[in-house]
Amino acid sequence: MASSEVGEKTLGVTTVFSGRVLTVELHEVELPGGRRTSREVVRHPGAVAVVAETDEGHVVLVDQFRYPIGRMSKEVPAGKLEPGEDPLACAKRELEEETGYRAGHWKFVTRFFTSPGFSDEVMYVYYATGLTPGASHPDEDEFLEVSSMSPKEVRHGLASGLFCDAKTLVALQWWAGRRSEK
Amino acid sequence: MASSEVGEKTLGVTTVFSGRVLTVELHEVELPGGRRTSREVVRHPGAVAVVAETDEGHVVLVDQFRYPIGRMSKEVPAGKLEPGEDPLACAKRELEEETGYRAGHWKFVTRFFTSPGFSDEVMYVYYATGLTPGASHPDEDEFLEVSSMSPKEVRHGLASGLFCDAKTLVALQWWAGRRSEK
Repeated sequence: MASSEVGEKTLGVTTVFSGRVLTVELHEVELPGGRRTSREVVRHPGAVAVVAETDEGHVVLVDQFRYPIGRMSKEVPAGKLEPGEDPLACAKRELEEETGYRAGHWKFVTRFFTSPGFSDEVMYVYYATGLTPGASHPDEDEFLEVSSMSPKEVRHGLASGLFCDAKTLVALQWWAGRRSEK
Repeated sequence: MASSEVGEKTLGVTTVFSGRVLTVELHEVELPGGRRTSREVVRHPGAVAVVAETDEGHVVLVDQFRYPIGRMSKEVPAGKLEPGEDPLACAKRELEEETGYRAGHWKFVTRFFTSPGFSDEVMYVYYATGLTPGASHPDEDEFLEVSSMSPKEVRHGLASGLFCDAKTLVALQWWAGRRSEK
């Protein structure tokens, strides 16, 4: 099926909220066949996530309070794209800001949409090796605790439900699968 | 770190949009240390995703136009929770609505938040086997094409970037990893 056969035609757009991070739009659309409906769309600047592997073969993680879900979450380092920012440049910036690490080698892993039913948020995932430690300098509204885990600990964490967010699951399932092939 | 040490105190909430699916809230919060900031929160009813495996060992997929990203997406069957709906009941309903299949065996795989930095959307993933085909009956604003893929095709699709959404990556990475252990 080509998108033109099944796509939805935009009849009108109303911006219902413009925030620091998000823009929320209400779209009136025409479906294939002619019926009309509305689509609620959350515009997001996009983000990056980093699988940072130490020379010992451990992966770097950050513990962080996530306000919308009201709990701590153990995640791979990540952050939002600045306007016009290259995703790889963002990944390098976020890794250093959140963990202090700089990496000698960077590899693109994948990109995906976190929730394409209502949002255009895209997540770029990178793999960073050749790490050099340094001082972290998180944003002033970020409170992070940096740790690391062995492949065995990660596999156990994946099986036990320790990790609770999409980017971390995608990133660590990829990393654990890649390592099990070695 | 306990949440109480690092959590953010809610000072006020303004609902800035109430839609058919989403509610968008602007929260004023106090950070640990006393500084104030705002948090933009998208409330979502939650959703389910289903890894449905045929007796031939293939996985059932649906092609669907995703309006917020303006493109087709090949995904595992999925759908939003109705108010008060049990996630497993939702998974059974959505699998049948979208693909016509009913499953004899259901297993919970994992649950995760799609984007906990701005949304509370939770995704429950189930594994369904013992499939019996039947007639699909999608929602009137859904236009779906059902297909299936072998484990080899899925592994190739994962490596080539065929799948572009978080739930499908989490679900198929799990399924492909599980099968490679067999």
